[in-house]
Amino acid sequence: MICNNSDIQNKIIDGRLIARNIESSISEKVIKLKQSGIVPAIAVILVGEDPASVVYVRNKERAAQRCGILSKKDIYPESLTEKELINKIEELNNDPLIHGILVQLPLPSHIGEKKITEAINPSKDVDGFHPLNVGKIFTENAPFYPCTPYGILKMLDYYDIPVKGKNCVIIGQSNIVGKPLAVMLMNRLAAVSSLNIFTKDVKSIASKADVLISATGKAHLIDDGYVKDGAVVIDVGIANIGGKICGDVNFDKVINKVSKITPVPGGVGPLTVAVLMENTVKSAMGRLQK
Amino acid sequence: MICNNSDIQNKIIDGRLIARNIESSISEKVIKLKQSGIVPAIAVILVGEDPASVVYVRNKERAAQRCGILSKKDIYPESLTEKELINKIEELNNDPLIHGILVQLPLPSHIGEKKITEAINPSKDVDGFHPLNVGKIFTENAPFYPCTPYGILKMLDYYDIPVKGKNCVIIGQSNIVGKPLAVMLMNRLAAVSSLNIFTKDVKSIASKADVLISATGKAHLIDDGYVKDGAVVIDVGIANIGGKICGDVNFDKVINKVSKITPVPGGVGPLTVAVLMENTVKSAMGRLQK
Repeated sequence: MICNNSDIQNKIIDGRLIARNIESSISEKVIKLKQSGIVPAIAVILVGEDPASVVYVRNKERAAQRCGILSKKDIYPESLTEKELINKIEELNNDPLIHGILVQLPLPSHIGEKKITEAINPSKDVDGFHPLNVGKIFTENAPFYPCTPYGILKMLDYYDIPVKGKNCVIIGQSNIVGKPLAVMLMNRLAAVSSLNIFTKDVKSIASKADVLISATGKAHLIDDGYVKDGAVVIDVGIANIGGKICGDVNFDKVINKVSKITPVPGGVGPLTVAVLMENTVKSAMGRLQK
Repeated sequence: MICNNSDIQNKIIDGRLIARNIESSISEKVIKLKQSGIVPAIAVILVGEDPASVVYVRNKERAAQRCGILSKKDIYPESLTEKELINKIEELNNDPLIHGILVQLPLPSHIGEKKITEAINPSKDVDGFHPLNVGKIFTENAPFYPCTPYGILKMLDYYDIPVKGKNCVIIGQSNIVGKPLAVMLMNRLAAVSSLNIFTKDVKSIASKADVLISATGKAHLIDDGYVKDGAVVIDVGIANIGGKICGDVNFDKVINKVSKITPVPGGVGPLTVAVLMENTVKSAMGRLQK
C-alpha cells in the first residue's frame, strides 16, 4: 500500500518545529538573564575555511541571533598553530562575559583535537566534548550533553517514543554521535546495538530495530531492507549529491514501512543547533546562581 | 558429542594464569621502582563490613603483597559521614607516597558514590571510575581503564581473539562493567549489543554473539540456548548458591558449544585485581618520570 500525502506528513519528525519550540523557550530565559544584567554569549572558533564548517558556523550564528544570544566569531587562518589556538581558548576560558566556547571541528591536521577539546574549560564546554563531561554521561550528571545525541533524545521525547526495553540500533561509532548516543540510550534502559563499517550483518541487525539511527555519512545506505515495519528512523547523515543535500536513508524507499522518520535536511540538524543554544543559556544561568 | 576432559581444559580461559603473568611483569617493574626509591603504594578504603567487600579488599591486599606493592588499608565504621570520607580522600590525594586510591563500593546509602568518585584525584584513580578518566575511554587516552572491562580485553588478547567486525553481546549495563566495556569494544571496531533486564529477546540476540559477556549477577542465567556454536563466553557474574560460588553461566550446559569460556571462580576476578595492581604501578611510574 502506498501512503497518501497526509500519512507521509504524519510520519515526518519535524526537526525545525521542535527546534523552534526549544529556541522559543530559550529566548524567554535569555530575556530574564538580560534583565539580571547577563548577556548569554557563545564564542565560536573556526580555523581554516572548510566549506561545510563555514555553513555549520553560519547556522549556529543565526540560531544565536534568533535566541538573543551574543555570538562572537573568531576566524583564524589554517596556519594557526596548536599553541596559538590553546592561548585563544585560555583567553576565552578566563573571559567572564563568555559562557560557551565552541571550536568547530574538524581542525587542520597539525592541531591535535584531543588537546584542544581538553583545553576548553568544562564549565564552558557547550559542545559536550570535554572528557570530564563525556564521562559524566555515564553517571547522568553532565552539565552539557553532546548536542546531536541529546537532540535525538529530545525528538524521541517530543513524540513520546519510549526506548526502555526497546531495540535501538545505531550505525556509526563516532565519538560525537554514535558512542555517546549508545551510552545515553543505555541510561534509558534500551537494548542498544552499535554497528560499524566492519559489521557483517548490518542489514539483518538493523531490520530488527524498533529505533534505527544511522550516522554514517554514506548517502542512501539505508533502504527498506534495513527497516522493520513500524520502526522509528533517525537519519544523522548528511551528504551532498549533485548539489542536493541528502542523508543516510533512502527516504522514498522506507517511508511506507516507518512509523516516524527524520527528513534530511530539516531533521536532526536543527536540533543539534538548538541544543547548543540551550547549553549556552544553561551555562549563563549557572553564572546567575553564583 | 560430549567433550572429553582435555577438550574442556583447552576451552577454559585460565584467569589465574593470565593474572599471574601480569603480576610477574608488575613485580619486575616494582623492583626497578624501588631501586629508584619509589615504593608503589595503594590506599584501600572500606566503609562498613559488607561481607563481599571484605573478601574483595582481602584479595586486593594479597595481590599487592605478591607484587611488592605497599597496601594501606583504612577501615571505617558504617557511620562515617560523606564529609569525613571526602576529607580522608583529600589527605590521600595530597600524600606523595600514595599512588593509587580505591574506595571499595558499594558505600553506605548516606554517602553519595558520584561525589566520592569525583573526589579522588584522577591521577590516583586506579579503579578508573573518575568521570574524567571514563570520558577518556572514548578518546583512548585514559591513564587508567576500569579494571574489569580492561581485564576482559587482556583475556581476549592473551588468546588472540580479535573483535574487529565481530558480534559482541554484553548482558548488563552497569557503569563499572557493561557501559565502559561496550565503549572499549566499539574502540576495537566490534559490533556491540548491550542488553538489560528489560530486553525482550535476550536469548535470540545472545545466541548470535561471537563473543558473549554476561555481567548480571543472576546465577546460571545463561544456558546453551543463549550460546552460538563456537562462541567465546566471558562470565563476569558472581553469586553464592548454597555456599558455592557460581557465575551467570551454566558452565556444564554450554561447555560443548563454546570455543572458549571463563570459569567462575578463576576467570574474570583475578584479572580485575591484576589490572588494579598494574594501574597502581603505572601511576607510580608516572611519579618516576616527574
